[in-house]
Amino acid sequence: MKIALAQLNYLIADFEGNRQKIITSIHKAKEQGAELVVFSELSVTGYYPHDLLEKKEFILKAIDTVREIAAQCTGISALVGAPAINDGERGKKLFNAAYFLRDGEICDIFCKTLLPTYDIFDEYRHFEPNRHFHLLETDTHRIAVTICEDLWDELPVHSEFGKDKLCQASPLGELMIMNPGMIINLAASPFSSDQENWRKEVLAAKAKMTGLPLIYVNQVGADAEMIYDGGSLFFSPSGEIISELAYFTEDFRVVDTGEIYIQAVQPPLSKTEKMRKALVLGIRDYFRKSGFSGAVLGLSGGIDSALVAVLAVEALGAANVRGLLMPSAYSSQHSIDDAVLLAQNLGIAYHSVPIQDTVESFSGALAPLFGNLPADVTEENIQARTRGLLLMAFSNKFGHIVLNTSNKSESAVGYGTLYGDMVGGLAVLGDVYKTEVYQLADLVNREKEIIPRNTILKAPSAELRPGQKDSDSLPEYNLLDKILFHYIELNKSPEEIASLGIDPAQVRKVIAMVNRNEYKRAQTAPILRITSKSFGSGRRMPLVGRY
Amino acid sequence: MKIALAQLNYLIADFEGNRQKIITSIHKAKEQGAELVVFSELSVTGYYPHDLLEKKEFILKAIDTVREIAAQCTGISALVGAPAINDGERGKKLFNAAYFLRDGEICDIFCKTLLPTYDIFDEYRHFEPNRHFHLLETDTHRIAVTICEDLWDELPVHSEFGKDKLCQASPLGELMIMNPGMIINLAASPFSSDQENWRKEVLAAKAKMTGLPLIYVNQVGADAEMIYDGGSLFFSPSGEIISELAYFTEDFRVVDTGEIYIQAVQPPLSKTEKMRKALVLGIRDYFRKSGFSGAVLGLSGGIDSALVAVLAVEALGAANVRGLLMPSAYSSQHSIDDAVLLAQNLGIAYHSVPIQDTVESFSGALAPLFGNLPADVTEENIQARTRGLLLMAFSNKFGHIVLNTSNKSESAVGYGTLYGDMVGGLAVLGDVYKTEVYQLADLVNREKEIIPRNTILKAPSAELRPGQKDSDSLPEYNLLDKILFHYIELNKSPEEIASLGIDPAQVRKVIAMVNRNEYKRAQTAPILRITSKSFGSGRRMPLVGRY
Repeated sequence: MKIALAQLNYLIADFEGNRQKIITSIHKAKEQGAELVVFSELSVTGYYPHDLLEKKEFILKAIDTVREIAAQCTGISALVGAPAINDGERGKKLFNAAYFLRDGEICDIFCKTLLPTYDIFDEYRHFEPNRHFHLLETDTHRIAVTICEDLWDELPVHSEFGKDKLCQASPLGELMIMNPGMIINLAASPFSSDQENWRKEVLAAKAKMTGLPLIYVNQVGADAEMIYDGGSLFFSPSGEIISELAYFTEDFRVVDTGEIYIQAVQPPLSKTEKMRKALVLGIRDYFRKSGFSGAVLGLSGGIDSALVAVLAVEALGAANVRGLLMPSAYSSQHSIDDAVLLAQNLGIAYHSVPIQDTVESFSGALAPLFGNLPADVTEENIQARTRGLLLMAFSNKFGHIVLNTSNKSESAVGYGTLYGDMVGGLAVLGDVYKTEVYQLADLVNREKEIIPRNTILKAPSAELRPGQKDSDSLPEYNLLDKILFHYIELNKSPEEIASLGIDPAQVRKVIAMVNRNEYKRAQTAPILRITSKSFGSGRRMPLVGRY
Repeated sequence: MKIALAQLNYLIADFEGNRQKIITSIHKAKEQGAELVVFSELSVTGYYPHDLLEKKEFILKAIDTVREIAAQCTGISALVGAPAINDGERGKKLFNAAYFLRDGEICDIFCKTLLPTYDIFDEYRHFEPNRHFHLLETDTHRIAVTICEDLWDELPVHSEFGKDKLCQASPLGELMIMNPGMIINLAASPFSSDQENWRKEVLAAKAKMTGLPLIYVNQVGADAEMIYDGGSLFFSPSGEIISELAYFTEDFRVVDTGEIYIQAVQPPLSKTEKMRKALVLGIRDYFRKSGFSGAVLGLSGGIDSALVAVLAVEALGAANVRGLLMPSAYSSQHSIDDAVLLAQNLGIAYHSVPIQDTVESFSGALAPLFGNLPADVTEENIQARTRGLLLMAFSNKFGHIVLNTSNKSESAVGYGTLYGDMVGGLAVLGDVYKTEVYQLADLVNREKEIIPRNTILKAPSAELRPGQKDSDSLPEYNLLDKILFHYIELNKSPEEIASLGIDPAQVRKVIAMVNRNEYKRAQTAPILRITSKSFGSGRRMPLVGRY
């Protein structure tokens, strides 16, 4: 059977635009002789529309759009993703569904059984799980249609307490009883740096276990926080990858499920290369989908802002990226020189706005209140906030979006000023540990020195007081990131982390900093998510509590 | 049967503190001759601990704490709320449970069946629903133990699309088959201005339908966003309220389920009085539970900041509240006079920090970049952000938390400056529409003029340019709030709202403003929730999308 895999980049709630894309792919698939074209999960609405799903008009428009797409399905069939209304007596109002379209009509509907409700996923908030199983029956084939998580029922869910668990249902197990000849999965599987390998293992195991060919169509593209990497797949019944679509870009391919020799796979990328591509896509789509083209960021001469500038140029083009240098009395000349050199290497425009006068103006205004109180973090924050204000003023005046340059290590321990260096429309490195920032910088410089060598080699400093270094108040970053990874990604206890051979006092200090700074992260810019546990919607902590 | 209702204010994750409170109430109940003392849902951890539930050490500590509490239960039994480990083969790792403690031990566990996963609730993220039902059997009584939502299965869930729906299960229906003599409900039911009446209706109907006495024990207290109002209840088998505990404060009472004449009910409060009490509790608990005592806020002479100052003084005492006046070139003398008069009426300290010099310093620094470009929103935002920076500097220097004074109407349409007047640790009025701000101000002034009359009477203005009035760019607030309420709380479409007799162009303009400003609200301070749909964790909208 010839099946087209249509891996597209959708804009949430853009029914008109999504419809056009889908219809174009339907016609292309027909031209190329496909009998069926498969789109990704919730393709009509874009994944994930969140509480727009609570609006009646949104649901009605989505279903109208499915009907309009169906009207284009003559001489070809399609599977598209969209919400469906639950007409049963009980449960949530909607299903997360795959619509089978043929002969100009909606011919069948398949609903998702396993609704991810953890990390960044909130599907049970909006959808009722499917409980009734059937196959898609075409003139010639019997197909098990599944939606994303439906194939992840046997995931080895390791439980930290109690027994390891299975899901409450096995959708494929139910469908296998009906003797299908093929498995199709419509997915919206977000990128994290280890997700691709994990996904391939899970899907290959399903193909092998059932002895059936398996087609997996993923969404590609990003919104403010989430990045979907594409990489749609066709597996042979023995679990081999026969065809693999591109990563981080739209792609389209017609496969023949009868031809099970390897046709096209993608060149493997290192973890750091994947992170780079993911972040570039994340920036590009945030701007394009928000209707903005220009970005502005503060260039401090440090490695974080340098890396963000590089990624922004890759995403938006040098002409669309502006740098602001905002030197203070504590800025070293080499920092200024490094920032200028970076801007020149990238070919981006930059402007210098010294902050000293304004900072002094604040000090003067506050002097009657502060009297002879000694300088402390207040004065450091005034500098950071003056810079934040200047970036926002530039943004307001010229319509550029401010890119935030805080990394995950800083964000974790609260080493940043709320409304100061934490401002921005998008936090590019908010899910990138400092040690990974260095890895990305090395990758960027592999062919040619773009990020000045001095920026990479010098000791990290916020330069908010004379001679300040990050290592004055933080553990060295290799150690810090190890503690953070085990606490944030792996939910380990202080004792467990110390048992890795780390000073328990150091561990407790770092964890206390993480816990104490939830309030700052609650007001931070949206963070591009590239790990299994990012700050943002996937990590929900109480703001008030004794922990 | 003599049963104690222990309505306490817990601190999330404070096992030591919560344990002490619970044990104190157990001893008190025993002294007063009660056979059983009932605490609220997840009382041991505090409701709701969010992703702390994903940490093994957190769960083990919670269960250890339950055991320590059990050890105190001699000569009396107790029902306390805490997570329990799911030892089954399938599903989530935890149950949301009620532990029955007697003779120094955990004797039985009852798990929650209906897990709210909508609005601010995320229970299915962490818990597996119960599927096995049994009664609590004491020597003399057979009791149906339920947890909060378990009694809300017959809620008339009106569906905007598809049929109205029932829940997938009826926990009380299952328990009634076993012939209980009483119903107990452990709850954590958040305040919203209409929730108390709704709750009483639902519970009274359950008592009446089953012909059983019903005891409902609610949590009281607030964290950053959520406010729980207490008001625990004892209903007769005919659905009458026999005993009603206090609202917005801890309370404790022993009732006798054999005595079904009305014993004590609370004086009814108006909606505005409830809102006031809820906001005061919200402020007080945020500070107390975060370990802070002092608050600072900007006093503009306008009604929003005046109302926040009043509520803060009620919550924290006048000595703990500071006002900053930050006049600009556009501030009218009457605004300054009104702000001073308010501070004097409240007896709070205030300081004046004029912003003109600093604003000019910013203009000077940016002049080489901005050249001859005309003044626009950039310059207005510089003023608002200069004020934000001054408030934060005051906060840093003196350890005061900044109270945000934006109201829900402004926040909805984006009439506020990110990192400017939107700064703060807590947004006191973020769920209070402007029309309700006026109602609260009238209530405050009912006995004595605290908020200056001029502050209430003058036309609202941000005073960011000469002669500016809110009504220049916004519809009149009565109309605006009506549109907003139907769009935000009721999820109505533009057509449905226009059908109320409102100019469709006006409706579309307002809705476009709401949609366009999701990005600002994503970075706002936590908002005290007092309606059924607040901005914050209960409303999750995509940041990028065409809507």
